[in-house]
Amino acid sequence: MLKLSRLLPSISGSRDCLRHSAAFSTATNNKYAAKGYTSNRIFAPYSVYKGKAAFSLSPCLPTFTKLDSGAVVVDRRGSMMMIFMHSIGERKYDWENKQRFALSATEVGSLISMGPQDSCEFFHDPSMLSSNAGQVRKSLSIKPHASSNGYFVSLTVVNNLLNTKDYLSVPVTTAEFAVMKTACSFALPHIMGWDRMTHQSGGTVGLQSKVEPPALDLEWDK
Amino acid sequence: MLKLSRLLPSISGSRDCLRHSAAFSTATNNKYAAKGYTSNRIFAPYSVYKGKAAFSLSPCLPTFTKLDSGAVVVDRRGSMMMIFMHSIGERKYDWENKQRFALSATEVGSLISMGPQDSCEFFHDPSMLSSNAGQVRKSLSIKPHASSNGYFVSLTVVNNLLNTKDYLSVPVTTAEFAVMKTACSFALPHIMGWDRMTHQSGGTVGLQSKVEPPALDLEWDK
Amino acid sequence: MLKLSRLLPSISGSRDCLRHSAAFSTATNNKYAAKGYTSNRIFAPYSVYKGKAAFSLSPCLPTFTKLDSGAVVVDRRGSMMMIFMHSIGERKYDWENKQRFALSATEVGSLISMGPQDSCEFFHDPSMLSSNAGQVRKSLSIKPHASSNGYFVSLTVVNNLLNTKDYLSVPVTTAEFAVMKTACSFALPHIMGWDRMTHQSGGTVGLQSKVEPPALDLEWDK
Amino acid sequence: MLKLSRLLPSISGSRDCLRHSAAFSTATNNKYAAKGYTSNRIFAPYSVYKGKAAFSLSPCLPTFTKLDSGAVVVDRRGSMMMIFMHSIGERKYDWENKQRFALSATEVGSLISMGPQDSCEFFHDPSMLSSNAGQVRKSLSIKPHASSNGYFVSLTVVNNLLNTKDYLSVPVTTAEFAVMKTACSFALPHIMGWDRMTHQSGGTVGLQSKVEPPALDLEWDK
Repeated sequence: MLKLSRLLPSISGSRDCLRHSAAFSTATNNKYAAKGYTSNRIFAPYSVYKGKAAFSLSPCLPTFTKLDSGAVVVDRRGSMMMIFMHSIGERKYDWENKQRFALSATEVGSLISMGPQDSCEFFHDPSMLSSNAGQVRKSLSIKPHASSNGYFVSLTVVNNLLNTKDYLSVPVTTAEFAVMKTACSFALPHIMGWDRMTHQSGGTVGLQSKVEPPALDLEWDK
Repeated sequence: MLKLSRLLPSISGSRDCLRHSAAFSTATNNKYAAKGYTSNRIFAPYSVYKGKAAFSLSPCLPTFTKLDSGAVVVDRRGSMMMIFMHSIGERKYDWENKQRFALSATEVGSLISMGPQDSCEFFHDPSMLSSNAGQVRKSLSIKPHASSNGYFVSLTVVNNLLNTKDYLSVPVTTAEFAVMKTACSFALPHIMGWDRMTHQSGGTVGLQSKVEPPALDLEWDK
Repeated sequence: MLKLSRLLPSISGSRDCLRHSAAFSTATNNKYAAKGYTSNRIFAPYSVYKGKAAFSLSPCLPTFTKLDSGAVVVDRRGSMMMIFMHSIGERKYDWENKQRFALSATEVGSLISMGPQDSCEFFHDPSMLSSNAGQVRKSLSIKPHASSNGYFVSLTVVNNLLNTKDYLSVPVTTAEFAVMKTACSFALPHIMGWDRMTHQSGGTVGLQSKVEPPALDLEWDK
Repeated sequence: MLKLSRLLPSISGSRDCLRHSAAFSTATNNKYAAKGYTSNRIFAPYSVYKGKAAFSLSPCLPTFTKLDSGAVVVDRRGSMMMIFMHSIGERKYDWENKQRFALSATEVGSLISMGPQDSCEFFHDPSMLSSNAGQVRKSLSIKPHASSNGYFVSLTVVNNLLNTKDYLSVPVTTAEFAVMKTACSFALPHIMGWDRMTHQSGGTVGLQSKVEPPALDLEWDK
């Protein structure tokens, strides 16, 4: 089973991160030209392919805005993007109907602090604060196997507008979860923007001069 | 509750780091021109907003001084700056009356080694070694919830000069504390200056040629 | 015993990583010119020399391919390369008959999540998907000492084509295993390619414009 | 007590790292010109000052050598340098009679894997393999407090050539030890040279074309 994933095309998480950037930019008057600055152009998701479904995990970096004072502040928060797909045959997954869930820094904190018997669940409303608030509800749950050998990572999406309900569940081994925790621990300071506060890569970022309210989660526009 | 924090302007920890730099520079004959070198211009604090108060956490990098010998030594030590504010209405916090507490490397060591039942408390005297020594006392305590689901992070500031006592307490979930621990573990080598010892970014730092006694904590001049 | 290893030439893991690159490049029409880009030219393996055998551990970075769209995706996955050698005398090891085992990201996840009483075993078939599938079987096992002071790290290679069976076992102390875990945790985001997603070194990578199926494990061509 | 250390000049570990480089270079025909390449010129040790003695901890990076083949290999291994000094008065320490102990990667592995009740001890012979072998014996021990609140870090140096015995012991709090563990975990891949294998800073290193046997520990020439 482990071998299987090596023979499959990667599920590109970052590509979706880019697509969402675009979508979001439109919604907010094309506030940032993310090209060349965020991680959008390099795709190296960690993918877990199983019999009924698959998911990939990859970091979406924050974007920054320059204030008139010269200060650079976080504009859109970073996240860990999870993308789920149903299996539609042997080594085939349904790319057309992906479901996204963008973990915030604090949700990543939940994930990396989970012990072997712990479980957690997160609820997102992609339409929060719009007239469609409450119409689409997403929940991601991580629950230990009865055998306490790994977890089930499951996404439920209830869409009252389309009258659909989608459920995708992927069993994850202890080893795969260890990769997720280590990779998320590595990525957390990056999605928080702290790598820039400490390493000061400086200079060449395409920033704008106005602060707008922090953006919502990346999967909201789905 | 988690969502709430996304809708609020960030509490800028690093901006205060800068303000303090300025204040301190004055006090020590403008010893270092920190501009362009320290992390002061990028602001990406981790903020926890709750009903009665909020705090933000962000790293303040050390500054360096070049000796006549050519050696570069730490001048002002780095710290993790915590900034607390009272709530003054729905999604509004009292920016005018912030309280600061700058965790030293060793205090960060206490924080990141805390188990779920541990607590710790730190005492700072911003006027230490001056004629006002003992007049202002700050203490930061981190105590586990009775339910052992997270902690209370509380700051007490007793100012005998102004005859005031301020108390701010923010409940922190296990997930939020995991973010704090992971982010502080990431930042610790940076506030110690070890990232520069290992990566050798070298060269372009605006350093001066005299070593002065190590600076006091960053919140001292408050 | 600890001192011994300091007097021995290093077992170069990365050199083998390079040799395999070459081999693999040939097999896939010289798809990538890895020179100057991957870590192949710097050799700093962590080596454990013991009485009957030795092994070294070093990261092999992933390679990337640029798509027509401009997106850069992982081409060949990274791994942690382990190289085993038999002892053939005092402080002498049999370089001519090395055995390789390339740990995938998920196998590294197993290793870094092992507790003191845990064991794990991985099975590789270097000829998988070829006409020789099943003819060569490699297994790497990590098992705790009866004393629970460290582990035995053992490689078995059964080659039905050559009618040979090779077995190499190296006792590893708790301290040496701690180095392995810490170094593997550090390396994991790098072999996943996540350091590039977050730091964006950009630009100068010699990439090609076609995606081919992900490569098999690096030791497969042995 | 914690405050005290802020008022004291730093104990420069890296400076000694440099001094030793020089000493060692002489002994090996000035094999490497370390200037500008290793971390020798930036000094940011983590220092623990206590009533009877003090120590500092700082990383010494490895040096590299370029082979005729173009490959770059580790020449002198990196280490964590500990420097101990006796107290000789209030806030005064005896710089003239420092004692050094350079922890190897594996010894760092021991330190970072210690639990609260664990202890460890390392033995070094600075004259190993010379005619003075066995004449100077150094041992570093780390032992938990009876109260299990921190550790005693103690260095014993027995010099039969000078007929001296030196003993320095520094009590270390749990928080200070957490800083040591976190900083050592951060530094470990760097002293192993793995940061260069993954980040490829490349190019400008002053390397020579011959591999010589790995150097002994850095404190050997004391």
